[in-house]
Amino acid sequence: MRALKGHGTQNDFVLLPDLDGVLDLRPEFVRALCDRHAGIGADGVLRVVRSQNHAEAKAVAAEAPFFMDYRNADGSLAEMCGNGLRLFMRYLQRASLVEHDATVATRGGILRVRSGTDGNVSVEMGQPRILADRPVVTVALCGPRAALAAVAMPNPHVIVQLERRDELDALDLSRPPQVVPALPEGQNVEFIVRADARRLTMRVHERGSGETRSCGTGICAVVVAAAAADGSGPDGSTWQVDVPGGTCTVVWRPDGGIVLSGPAVIVAEIELDEDWLAAVR
Amino acid sequence: MRALKGHGTQNDFVLLPDLDGVLDLRPEFVRALCDRHAGIGADGVLRVVRSQNHAEAKAVAAEAPFFMDYRNADGSLAEMCGNGLRLFMRYLQRASLVEHDATVATRGGILRVRSGTDGNVSVEMGQPRILADRPVVTVALCGPRAALAAVAMPNPHVIVQLERRDELDALDLSRPPQVVPALPEGQNVEFIVRADARRLTMRVHERGSGETRSCGTGICAVVVAAAAADGSGPDGSTWQVDVPGGTCTVVWRPDGGIVLSGPAVIVAEIELDEDWLAAVR
Repeated sequence: MRALKGHGTQNDFVLLPDLDGVLDLRPEFVRALCDRHAGIGADGVLRVVRSQNHAEAKAVAAEAPFFMDYRNADGSLAEMCGNGLRLFMRYLQRASLVEHDATVATRGGILRVRSGTDGNVSVEMGQPRILADRPVVTVALCGPRAALAAVAMPNPHVIVQLERRDELDALDLSRPPQVVPALPEGQNVEFIVRADARRLTMRVHERGSGETRSCGTGICAVVVAAAAADGSGPDGSTWQVDVPGGTCTVVWRPDGGIVLSGPAVIVAEIELDEDWLAAVR
Repeated sequence: MRALKGHGTQNDFVLLPDLDGVLDLRPEFVRALCDRHAGIGADGVLRVVRSQNHAEAKAVAAEAPFFMDYRNADGSLAEMCGNGLRLFMRYLQRASLVEHDATVATRGGILRVRSGTDGNVSVEMGQPRILADRPVVTVALCGPRAALAAVAMPNPHVIVQLERRDELDALDLSRPPQVVPALPEGQNVEFIVRADARRLTMRVHERGSGETRSCGTGICAVVVAAAAADGSGPDGSTWQVDVPGGTCTVVWRPDGGIVLSGPAVIVAEIELDEDWLAAVR
């Protein structure tokens, strides 16, 4: 069985090409693939299926010919992943399945993706929604802070702005920040400092995963929070967001849509060992 | 560039076949390979070189035809690795370079390896040395304890015996245990409970790496400590040691030599991406 390993700002994935939709992606197999010591190791699995060959995407196959079947490392289904979708696009190009544009069906809706001449990949992430909530966030080595904003992308984010870079670096995110009141479905918590008028430095604690090196929806959410705080809103300007795993750019367009752009790196092509497969499947 | 990923009791490695000894294994390349998010991910790199083609092993090529060039994940040189040597042997067999026995040159000396009919691989690990030291070890969620023994394999180990399995499970090994007085070159610290007369359950904190799922020399050291405490010594009996990553067996032979046996699993063959290689080398 062939696979690829790659990452988008160090959010890393095992990608399984399965155009005919014949693979049985049971949770225990996903967990075995994502195990960082006994398997390949990844934050999640991206299966590439032609929409016409997958029950969840068949109805939209004419509009979106490929379906991104994304699974979390624990084997559970996931709606969408901005960093993963960039790698998905990079694979489609590598395999000569698309040229520079693709429309991809995901469990989070149909998304347009474009590969730029700068080597980055852009994803139209949909419309953010600023929530009425402004919880108070407490985390080790940083006292209670009122959130800058809470944003649905549509997954829930709470954004906290700090004054200085050394405060950001000192945060202990090995445990979940305390959020009061918590959002109904929990939240990712992003901490940012402003490096410049349109440049943010961010760390993120993801619900269920802990601190990660990058979070695509989080990168979009912090730009929405900062632009809203500035009163600039969706003006089409370009923001840069530095995360531990690299740098992405975000544009909040006047029509309200968010575009996330960033790198997508294929590290290796992989042939899974037959004996190993027999033991884990 | 071709590679393999595999593990021995979940101590995992990127193995680079380089029989002609032409690869330039600079520390930054090793670190890139071992990076668990931006690379392949591993505890270390094993390069397979014909001894005649490597300056460190040329003199012993007649006796030990293959050299295991082992590097830690941080790029530094390492002497030996019992779990890694099993995977090294599995590769030699897979590539039809040996049959069931091999003699391998390592920076820790020349070692004999044998692949058994049970699928496990056995490594002659040399002679242990029980040290005079008996430091006191303190670790979170467990008060100060006098060590059962300190053992050189030849790398230094301090072994602490606990009474109950729930005490072992509750240990917080996210920080190094405090050892007073510490051994001159630091130490790995193993915590064990006895599951049976000749069966131990072990967790380990490795100097420089933190808690790992397995440590080959540590597995040997805990058997030496337990056998010495029993007064049985090197009597040739077979011990089993359960670690978080699996189970190994150890025989402390009457001639004083230690034999470590355990699984060696090839997970996948890997073709590193040319663009990725160009970026990291």
